[in-house]
Amino acid sequence: MRILVTNDDGIFSPGIKALARAMAELGEVIVVAPDIEQSAVGHGITIRRPLRFKHTASAGLEPIPAYRVDGTPADCVVLGAHLKGPFDLVVSGINLGVNLGLDITSSGTVAGAMEGVSLGIPSVAVSLDTVHMEELDFTYAAQAAQTVVRWVIEHGLPEKVLLNVNVPAERPRGFRVVGLVDRYYQDQVVEREDPAGVPYYWIAGEPIEESKAGTDLWAVRNGYVALTPINLDFTDSELVPTLKKDLEGA
Amino acid sequence: MRILVTNDDGIFSPGIKALARAMAELGEVIVVAPDIEQSAVGHGITIRRPLRFKHTASAGLEPIPAYRVDGTPADCVVLGAHLKGPFDLVVSGINLGVNLGLDITSSGTVAGAMEGVSLGIPSVAVSLDTVHMEELDFTYAAQAAQTVVRWVIEHGLPEKVLLNVNVPAERPRGFRVVGLVDRYYQDQVVEREDPAGVPYYWIAGEPIEESKAGTDLWAVRNGYVALTPINLDFTDSELVPTLKKDLEGA
Repeated sequence: MRILVTNDDGIFSPGIKALARAMAELGEVIVVAPDIEQSAVGHGITIRRPLRFKHTASAGLEPIPAYRVDGTPADCVVLGAHLKGPFDLVVSGINLGVNLGLDITSSGTVAGAMEGVSLGIPSVAVSLDTVHMEELDFTYAAQAAQTVVRWVIEHGLPEKVLLNVNVPAERPRGFRVVGLVDRYYQDQVVEREDPAGVPYYWIAGEPIEESKAGTDLWAVRNGYVALTPINLDFTDSELVPTLKKDLEGA
Repeated sequence: MRILVTNDDGIFSPGIKALARAMAELGEVIVVAPDIEQSAVGHGITIRRPLRFKHTASAGLEPIPAYRVDGTPADCVVLGAHLKGPFDLVVSGINLGVNLGLDITSSGTVAGAMEGVSLGIPSVAVSLDTVHMEELDFTYAAQAAQTVVRWVIEHGLPEKVLLNVNVPAERPRGFRVVGLVDRYYQDQVVEREDPAGVPYYWIAGEPIEESKAGTDLWAVRNGYVALTPINLDFTDSELVPTLKKDLEGA
């Protein structure tokens, strides 16, 4: 069982250390992660410039081999699979902050898992609600990751499906298998002026606190580990017949 | 009918000019696009640095107002909606190159439309197979965009659904409503050495030429405009009962 561990907070993040150690109890782990934080990069792949792939003993992961890449989480999975593969699993995280709802399309953590799926490797993304934590503690997130990954090792995953795991700040009351909330962050734009008086804009995400029952946001807000299977076949089959009728003759 | 036009090739791309002019026949168009090419950035949103929003007469779009942003297509949609909204439609493209299959998760063009959907605005992404063109010609892509957008203006779109449109290089034989192919590009990694003898890696996408009937790749390869409704609720409902049974008690 060879497990590629990546993240988007970067190779020096405490979250990837906790995840790599938890995964090392389940198989042979190799860490390939961005050299700097890549939050909200989405499923970007670097194709316009070359990338470096460097052994990184200073990440404090020894004896687990660790490599850093000057690119996105998806880049890390592509290069990791090419240079150190084959892998049986890709596990991405533990992200400092939840990845819920439609915001997963902007998440570097989930993008690492998407790239795994797209290479045909069963993949899991793990995120932790650190905003509501007084002190960083990965204990329960690492345990949740182990539980989910053990399940995947035993049962496998359908093609094109990844598991998205979000762990609450406090000790979890158990797992809830839930759908994606519409949106977790509400985009806000903060307007300011630079020292020369020229305006600039800062995109800020304001977390939405209300949560519909049965969603990932609801689960995490209520102290459960939110587990959501994500299918990467995005075709909306309901609209197909209408579009066929109206446009195939156009 | 207020239409926000964006892209990922940048505000100076001929593709966005063709799209903006085609859309100007259907409503009031405002262009907000990246200042430089943002291909393969995926659904990234810039949250770690401020952004500029600059009127850009030099884009050659007059009298259509055009603004450039030093960020991603999703940034353009967020800032455009905030500063110049509200909009009834977001249309992204015309991309120089197709956006097919699972690769749409890395596509800046599709990300512009995703951000539109995520702000509750009906959205369409338009891409053109320029690789198989001898000379850039947006005539048919602009016509296809008009046909699809007219349909959306008349019928609307379900919440969370965007339309992904890919136009073949030659004059289209019509529309085909199709699903996403598994993958269009096969990731390849090219290894080289820099002048100091240190290795570097370049991720290259090798287009996959074989195509299963009924997919977007098949349609474009066979001279049709590929039209795919994309649903941004990614939850895989088939796996939910098994996961509930196995893990909710864990």
